[in-house]
Amino acid sequence: MLGYHRSSACCAIRPLSPIEDRALKRSLPVIHEIRERDEGRGRVIEEMDLEFSNGERRVFHRVLARGAQAVCVVPLIDNDTVMLVREYAAGVHRYELGLVAGLANPGESSIDAANREMMEEIGFGARKLKVLRALSLSPRFMQHEIQVVVAADLYESKLPGDEPEPLERVPMKWRDLESHMLQDDFSDGRSLAALFIVRAWLADGGRFDA
Amino acid sequence: MLGYHRSSACCAIRPLSPIEDRALKRSLPVIHEIRERDEGRGRVIEEMDLEFSNGERRVFHRVLARGAQAVCVVPLIDNDTVMLVREYAAGVHRYELGLVAGLANPGESSIDAANREMMEEIGFGARKLKVLRALSLSPRFMQHEIQVVVAADLYESKLPGDEPEPLERVPMKWRDLESHMLQDDFSDGRSLAALFIVRAWLADGGRFDA
Repeated sequence: MLGYHRSSACCAIRPLSPIEDRALKRSLPVIHEIRERDEGRGRVIEEMDLEFSNGERRVFHRVLARGAQAVCVVPLIDNDTVMLVREYAAGVHRYELGLVAGLANPGESSIDAANREMMEEIGFGARKLKVLRALSLSPRFMQHEIQVVVAADLYESKLPGDEPEPLERVPMKWRDLESHMLQDDFSDGRSLAALFIVRAWLADGGRFDA
Repeated sequence: MLGYHRSSACCAIRPLSPIEDRALKRSLPVIHEIRERDEGRGRVIEEMDLEFSNGERRVFHRVLARGAQAVCVVPLIDNDTVMLVREYAAGVHRYELGLVAGLANPGESSIDAANREMMEEIGFGARKLKVLRALSLSPRFMQHEIQVVVAADLYESKLPGDEPEPLERVPMKWRDLESHMLQDDFSDGRSLAALFIVRAWLADGGRFDA
């Protein structure tokens, strides 16, 4: 299905070498001073007085991640199918397709939080769970990251959630990801990234014990 | 390369129908009242007094997108290669792989902003540009979206940028996306989603005039 040679939309510019060969291995900027600014309601801005390796001085701002660890879950229903949810998303004021997601409770691991959120949002627990990677929200400006958890060997198990209405469960065949990837109501970058990543990880063997 | 039948990590639960068949077609919640709270420095929170179609009443908050339109760019160097950048990302305090990105100036279209950002960050302009879709940042809580622009037929053209140091240009072969998709320093969900989406769009013909 995926071949990368069909488009003639671009032109050759110069020979290229692989990613790793070209890394400049720059040193991180030196942090001369950090000032925290508490903006209330849990929002803390950090002002960092930075010196880059070329001597340039700049003040950069970032929003600190002070809350609970965020998780999103890719629940595998069978070899060909993943369970999405359709949920009212207030930020964009529409019903959105996306992943089961939520915040870990104090002391709760990402794995346990993922399993609980699945029970609350789609009525399944999982016997196999694995954190695949963290995805950042806006790495230039925000410290926030979300853990991507893949879940398999599901069983029915329902916990009450705090949603105003039950989430709609939307099974999607992996082969249909491309047909949905440009839908207006399937817009969350991290959900889309997590789905493509998990599909490729499964295609590469998808070992939960590795 | 991608086949979705190799994993035995999951179990069949029930027969499933395609996505579209199962959409509940719920009505959007009725907004009874909206209160804006200006938190300063351009940050405005909207409190929405909502009534869901089942009669549940809730107050939801969202951060309004009040600033300029954000764009990110997927520049195609040749049929097999995309140009990434490696840049200091203050939010996570590390050098990160990602896409050329920035904000449109007042009155500037997403296409023009994408072309200008390419000239500033990697020293290329493009004769073909197309907005593929918008990706949202955190659709439950934030109104913010970024336009994904694909760019081809590149030519060398340099504009001065406002970065503290030149960005490192990092060409990546499309076939290497899977080898890099779990790297710690390649964490931006929207960059990863945009790359998988553009690669699949190219594999499907990638027409700029469609």
